[in-house]
Formats: sequence, C-alpha cells, structure tokens
Amino acid sequence: MSTLKNDLLLRALRGEKTERTPVWMMRQAGRYLPDYLKLKEKYSFFERCQTPELAAEITIQPVEQVGVDAAIIFSDILVVPQAMGMEVQMVEHKGPLLPEPIRRASDLDRISVPDVEDSLGYVFDALRLTKKMLNGRVPLIGFAGAPWTLLCYMVEGKGSKTFDGAKAFCYTQPEVAHRLLQLITDTTIAYLKGQAAAGADVVQIFDSWGGLLSPEDFEILSLRYIRQIVAALKDEALTIIFAKGAWQSLEAMAATGAHGLGIDWCIRPQVARQLVGPKVTLQGNFDPAKLVSPIPVIEREVRAMLDAFEGGPHIANLGHGILPNIPVDHARAFVETVKNYAYEPAR
Amino acid sequence: MSTLKNDLLLRALRGEKTERTPVWMMRQAGRYLPDYLKLKEKYSFFERCQTPELAAEITIQPVEQVGVDAAIIFSDILVVPQAMGMEVQMVEHKGPLLPEPIRRASDLDRISVPDVEDSLGYVFDALRLTKKMLNGRVPLIGFAGAPWTLLCYMVEGKGSKTFDGAKAFCYTQPEVAHRLLQLITDTTIAYLKGQAAAGADVVQIFDSWGGLLSPEDFEILSLRYIRQIVAALKDEALTIIFAKGAWQSLEAMAATGAHGLGIDWCIRPQVARQLVGPKVTLQGNFDPAKLVSPIPVIEREVRAMLDAFEGGPHIANLGHGILPNIPVDHARAFVETVKNYAYEPAR
Repeated sequence: MSTLKNDLLLRALRGEKTERTPVWMMRQAGRYLPDYLKLKEKYSFFERCQTPELAAEITIQPVEQVGVDAAIIFSDILVVPQAMGMEVQMVEHKGPLLPEPIRRASDLDRISVPDVEDSLGYVFDALRLTKKMLNGRVPLIGFAGAPWTLLCYMVEGKGSKTFDGAKAFCYTQPEVAHRLLQLITDTTIAYLKGQAAAGADVVQIFDSWGGLLSPEDFEILSLRYIRQIVAALKDEALTIIFAKGAWQSLEAMAATGAHGLGIDWCIRPQVARQLVGPKVTLQGNFDPAKLVSPIPVIEREVRAMLDAFEGGPHIANLGHGILPNIPVDHARAFVETVKNYAYEPAR
Repeated sequence: MSTLKNDLLLRALRGEKTERTPVWMMRQAGRYLPDYLKLKEKYSFFERCQTPELAAEITIQPVEQVGVDAAIIFSDILVVPQAMGMEVQMVEHKGPLLPEPIRRASDLDRISVPDVEDSLGYVFDALRLTKKMLNGRVPLIGFAGAPWTLLCYMVEGKGSKTFDGAKAFCYTQPEVAHRLLQLITDTTIAYLKGQAAAGADVVQIFDSWGGLLSPEDFEILSLRYIRQIVAALKDEALTIIFAKGAWQSLEAMAATGAHGLGIDWCIRPQVARQLVGPKVTLQGNFDPAKLVSPIPVIEREVRAMLDAFEGGPHIANLGHGILPNIPVDHARAFVETVKNYAYEPAR
C-alpha cells in the first residue's frame, strides 16, 4: 500500500488526535457535479458502475473539484441483490425497481451467495484503478448496504417511506426473513473483504432504513447481522456503521467494535457522544437540505455543528447524501469551512 | 356537556390515576374498516369529510366495531390549507396534491386567515352531530396539523420522504416562511377553538414531519408555533402534541403545557419518560406494521409495550396511523389486549 499524503480520515477513525477534522460527504461522487452529469447523459447507471474507468473517474471528481479528505467508490448498495440473482432496475426520477421481489420461502431458491469475484469483480477493478489514480492523495472508502436495508428493497421491490411490506414479511415469516438476512450477510462479508483486498482503506455499512425499526427489532433484524460483518472485517479495513435514525441503538453499535458511527442532524452531537462513550469516532451530521442556504449561513451553521462535536473524535460529513440541486460552490463552502476550523473549548 | 360514561382518556390526560389504560388508534376511522370502504366507493374523500352525516358515521364506526375509548373526528389536516385558499386534491394511491404550491412571497397573496365558521363550519357540524350520536359513550377528539407539517405540503405541493423543497424554502426565504407559519397558526387556533366549542374534548396537533428537522430547527420552525396553539387552547380543550420522530424535543414539548405527548415505536417508553418528567401523559407507541403479526404475537407485543410504560400516565395507541391492510380482528386484538392488561410493577 502506498503511503498516504492525507491520512486524516484513517487517523480519526483510529481515535488518534488529528491537526484538523477530516471531511467528506455522502454521495459526494455524482448528482450535483456538472462533470458527473455529462457522463450520466452518455452512460446508463449500471454502465457507470460496471465500467471501472468511469467509476474511478466519478469517484475522483469530488477529491479534485471539492477538496474532500476521502474518496468513496462510485457504486450502489443494490449491486449486492443483483449479484445474488435479482433483477434491479434504476428508473430515472423514480428510484430502484426490483420487479420480482422476495415474498415467500420458495423465492429464496432464486437467489444465492455468489462468487463475488465473478459477480462483483467490476467493483474490485474500479477500486484498484481508483487507488492507482489517487496515487496516495486521500484514503479510499468502500461500502455496502446493511442486510436489513437490502432486505427492505428485495422484499418491497422498490423504495418506500415506511417499508411496511418488508416489515410485514419479517413479522409474518420471521424464519424466512432470517434466512434471507443471513444470505445477504454472507454475501456482504465476502464482498467487503474483496473491497478491502482491492484497496478500500475503510468500509462503510449503510443502514438507511435502520431507523424504521424499534430498538428491539433493530437488534434482531439488523444489528445482529451488522455485528457479523464488522467482526469479519476486523483485520481487513476500518469500519463505519451509518444506521440513519437508529439513535436508540448507538450504544449497541459502538459495542460492535466499529471504528466510526454515522449520525444524522436529528440527534445533537453531545447526546450521541454521551450514548457512545469517549472512544468511537462520530461522523456527521449536517442537514444536507441546509446546503441550499446562502454561503455565509452555511459557514455559520457548519461551525456551529463542529462546535457541537466538541473536539471529540469526529469526521465531518452530512447526515444523509448530498442533494442533486446543491451548487458546487456550496458543497465547497461546506468542505472549506471544516478545513479552516479549529476547535476551541469554551472556558 | 353530557356526562361521559367512559372518561378514561380525559382522566389519563389530566394525569389522574385510571383503573386501566385508555386506548385508541390513530387513523382508526377509515381505511381498514369494511363499512368505511363501502362509503368510500360511493363518496369522494371531500364528500366524506364535508358531509356531517358521513363524517359522523365514519367517526363512530371504530367505537362500535373495535371498542376504542375515544372517537376522533374523520377529517384531514389539509382542510386547513384548503380553507386558507389553496386547492387540495386527494389522488387515490398517490396521496395529496396541491397543484399551486407556495414558492415565494407573492404567493402569500393567494392565501389568508379565513373565517373558520364559513370555511370549516362543516367540521364543526360533524363534531356536533358526532357528539350527539355518541351520546356520552366516549370522549371526542378533534385535530389539526402542526403549522410546520402544513407548510411542508403547502410548499412542496405533495407528499415527500424528506420535504427538501419545503426546507429549501425555509432556509432561503426564512422571513416568508415565518409569515406563512404565522398565517397557518392563526387559522389553526381559530379552527381548534371552533372544534372545542363544537364538542371536541381533546385536540391533537399532528406534526408528522417534525422529525425531519434538527432540534434547533424544530424549535424555530415548529415548536414556536405549536406553543402558541397550546397556549391559546388552554382553557378550551385538553391538548396532545404528536411530533413524530422529534424525540430530541420531547422535553421542550412537555414544557408547552400540553397534556399529552405522542411517541413512536423508535423511542423506548422509559427513555421518553426520562425526557419529559413524571407528569405529562405519554401516548403510543406500537409499530402499526406489527399489527399484521398473528394475534398471539400482537397480544404478547402489546403487553410488552404496556410493561415498558411502567404504569405511568399513558394512553395506548399506535406510533403512527393504522395501515389499510390490517384485518379488523387484529385491530380488535390490540384494543382488547390493552383493556385486559393490568400493570404489575416488577419487584
């Protein structure tokens, strides 16, 4: 592994003191970047994911154009259900569509734990190429969806506000649900190990729908499987869990041994810190909708967010993906404000 | 006012000890009830709302068929924007549509604080008729949307997962946003006073989208206006605030003087109790998606929920509206389990 010129993110995740807070943005590769939109006109979503040259180019754009302290590989959490044998379509302005969702035990016959080199090797190729092109400028983050969140899509067949269909599946056929969650978990472990081997320094587990569950159900349907993934990756990469909205389980997530925990803007950083203890690194938590504000307001609000993390181990980020309508100079203002900030304890 | 045969809900809201926990379900009137679905085939949504005989019949159905301890008037939070001058359509399978949303200061010229007797008198008529038909069997609940939640629809023009458009409006045109919020607040106060005068014993303020805001923004954009409403209703009705997901502001909501606070299943009742102190009545918090479970599972889980409220001032309810696909006997199992439960402190 080449020596990194900027390893702020890795040191922050290891709980080391850093000269300043590292910063990146969820969904930083894509959407709001004009150079990405040009590629989007020419290539379909899966062409962009599956062509290592395109994925690597998109991944590096925000490093060069916005100045973030880490690259996150351009991909999607639904490549895993796809690799397991399900059809996944990305419908413009509508979101993902899985036309043949899982609804009963017999549907599990249609999916399997794949050989990830065969089915997801294009992601590993993209990581290797990105790593080379980054040439040590910043660390590289890989990622996967949490098993619960992937189950949501695999059962519901599309996005939803509440995923009541996925929940109904779990509440009426718990044994089938757990078999499915284990198949996803096994695939995800192999997939993330492959990502680490291909050069991902850090892997983030996105549990976008973890916050739809009660704390008890989050333990049973989600954290139990995330725990397996974090344990399996222990010696291969630094790990971050981002279970959006699942604040009641932050303490339990900290106990998994993950290096970082993402939080959204609906929880005060001080409250999150109280819940997780002094060691684990918190990541977040700016409301992405606020990046539409005038730049002076962004600067003021970003500093207020940083103040609230009180110099504790922290990676500055949004509390959810950046929105497509954000002007690039607003994204840059977010990043620059973090870079120019120095925490001064109020005394 | 006639003497109530069953005033459990009112006594629970006043913080008095009750012989058992009162129970009702958000959205209990409608959706999953076969007799409601028959009326739905014959009359449009607004016909059902605006015809007092229909609204009263629908309101009373769950009292007679499911055995709840309160009736909540059949209506919709969007009757307020409608009364203020906006067009509101209810599109089957799609949800509400406001074809001419508020986007800038000049759009405020199109709306006003209406004379509620003129524009919402049909709700008052429905309440009076319901009150008469209930004949003192159970208390009657009125309701309105919180100003922030109504702003979301009035600006976004339709439902959304994240209401980024509504947030962008508030973050880029804060002065216009606050003028709009005050217009909604003034209308809502007059509307809820009218509901109380027409026989509503309790009014609930639904802030369905309060949980999309950071605690700081919730104070500025939502609670500031809810506080005005609660204060204005002080002598006219018991009040419940249900700001779904806004757990970080529970303490501040308790300080408004509201009698009850709704919580959803994502917060442990014990944690909510710690946040609000011993006095205020908590309402909730069963995951409505769980009502698909087999009845013995519902019974077990409802008892576990009741245990978690530890005999404190509590109204049993769901943590969100009942879903359309719930069998009536499952809804009944929820209600019956509450009625048959007696809290026994673990010693």
